[in-house]
Amino acid sequence: MSAGAPVPIAPQGAPADVSRLSLNTATTKAWTLREAVDGAARAGLPAVGLWRDRVAEAGLREAARIVADAGLRVSSLCRGGFLTAADDAGIAAALQDNRAAIVEAATLGTHELVFVVGGLPAASAPGGGALPYPSRADRTARHPLADPARDLVATRRRVADRIADLVPFAAEHDVRIVLEPLHPVFAADRAVISTLGQALDLAAPFPADVVGVVVDTYHVWWDPDLERQIARAGAERRIASYQVCDWILPLAADPLLSRGYMGDGYVDFATITRWVTAAGYLGDVEVEIFNQEVWDTPGDQVVATVAARYARHVQPHLAPSPQG
Amino acid sequence: MSAGAPVPIAPQGAPADVSRLSLNTATTKAWTLREAVDGAARAGLPAVGLWRDRVAEAGLREAARIVADAGLRVSSLCRGGFLTAADDAGIAAALQDNRAAIVEAATLGTHELVFVVGGLPAASAPGGGALPYPSRADRTARHPLADPARDLVATRRRVADRIADLVPFAAEHDVRIVLEPLHPVFAADRAVISTLGQALDLAAPFPADVVGVVVDTYHVWWDPDLERQIARAGAERRIASYQVCDWILPLAADPLLSRGYMGDGYVDFATITRWVTAAGYLGDVEVEIFNQEVWDTPGDQVVATVAARYARHVQPHLAPSPQG
Repeated sequence: MSAGAPVPIAPQGAPADVSRLSLNTATTKAWTLREAVDGAARAGLPAVGLWRDRVAEAGLREAARIVADAGLRVSSLCRGGFLTAADDAGIAAALQDNRAAIVEAATLGTHELVFVVGGLPAASAPGGGALPYPSRADRTARHPLADPARDLVATRRRVADRIADLVPFAAEHDVRIVLEPLHPVFAADRAVISTLGQALDLAAPFPADVVGVVVDTYHVWWDPDLERQIARAGAERRIASYQVCDWILPLAADPLLSRGYMGDGYVDFATITRWVTAAGYLGDVEVEIFNQEVWDTPGDQVVATVAARYARHVQPHLAPSPQG
Repeated sequence: MSAGAPVPIAPQGAPADVSRLSLNTATTKAWTLREAVDGAARAGLPAVGLWRDRVAEAGLREAARIVADAGLRVSSLCRGGFLTAADDAGIAAALQDNRAAIVEAATLGTHELVFVVGGLPAASAPGGGALPYPSRADRTARHPLADPARDLVATRRRVADRIADLVPFAAEHDVRIVLEPLHPVFAADRAVISTLGQALDLAAPFPADVVGVVVDTYHVWWDPDLERQIARAGAERRIASYQVCDWILPLAADPLLSRGYMGDGYVDFATITRWVTAAGYLGDVEVEIFNQEVWDTPGDQVVATVAARYARHVQPHLAPSPQG
């Protein structure tokens, strides 16, 4: 584990403690995996969060070697998931892809595989949400059943079933399935897990070192039950990752790209970070920002801004690191 | 109470039971209050939901007369709220405006005054969210306190305080403060009440006929705790209004305008309507659609589409009406 060199923070010039700061490769999208690893190392960061696309480009074993040679740790791998298919072929494909992701995480030396679980069938149908209306006969025949393509309860039940399917394989490979609640703005099309409490309920049947959760400020900041659920996640030892970025307005045309640097939006990082600290979390803090403007900025400048904002808004509210 | 004449529904031509369907004037934005009342009456609808801007244009007593003369009921008045100010002047202004809204509701003969409670102070600051960063000295001085402009916990506490302030006045006027949980996409800038459970917690200290909640499918459809909270709302006799419209994608540039006709998006109306029915709700069902395309459509055509979609997606899942 590399403690990392101090990074000067404008304007005070005081060195930042980045010993728990991890650069997620999605933040520096224009960089290859090697460039991101080198950039993180140059800035003194001890860890990177990897996306599977960058790993695939580099080749799995080569990616593992690049990270190890740089002396960094892999805080998490993004992402498994998309578990909501209702048909046999779709289920089989999802299980196969997620088993591959589990092997990739193990090979990269990370315990934490983040899962974005997928949306409603209606959102993945050809033509998006514009499904044909059921005929009156269909509706009457099904009454009072829900339209299966929009049946959120059944879709969530399938996610629970797929997690159960994958748990033994994950446990064999010492990889944790890390459930990510996504902001409810993504409930239709990306993730039917919408709250931390729901993620913990889904994790509950399984051991804490096989199914965990991620606390991503962008997705959970609004939740009136957040303090209680973070405490619960800590007590259950399921917090696998703490990810930070800000909720900015107006939303980008694609809300997926509407994340900002910490301090640019509405998230109360002091409070949420203190809750995560009080819950006993001592792991890495990943910064994962999807934002076209950030992506258009030179990588080193992005990393410097990330480190400065982390030092200002997040790090002061973490527990003192074991290194002192 | 007018039961309403049947409306022919294409393509089957079967008459629709619209005896509980209420047209919210926000759906036919181009219409004056009189035009909306006339349009609802022409379509056989028994009720309208009114916005205060349309009432103000018509004049309060004239508005009450127009609705009464048409034999319609007012299912709700929108809206009070915006209770999150932290300064004395802002608090006084909010209380004054809400007392006026309570008087308006009583004058219009509706028991239900819908409250949209307002967002974070950071979102109403000049320049929107682009507040200046606190200086390092400020931050250190406040540590570990949150930035007050982004302190969601404190903002929510102020909402509870303002509700308590308004309850006696509302009770005197036989008007119910109806708390509306808004979709979390609006948590920063429009409403810090984000779930039905949170709304019920805020209502809990007060009698059910003075503080209630609205179930608006657009805002709550994603909630994994929805079935339980609707049942709780029914058991506590706090469901003051059931509002229906759809969650459509992609989001409009202004997410406020991203609502659709029932059936055009992702909401499972059958399931949610059955939960509301099981909770014992027997009141009006309001259709409130903010959508530029709908607003650009002739009002009578909008009302016909609303009635048709209601008949197809909502009405079959309601309890049989007392009339038969």
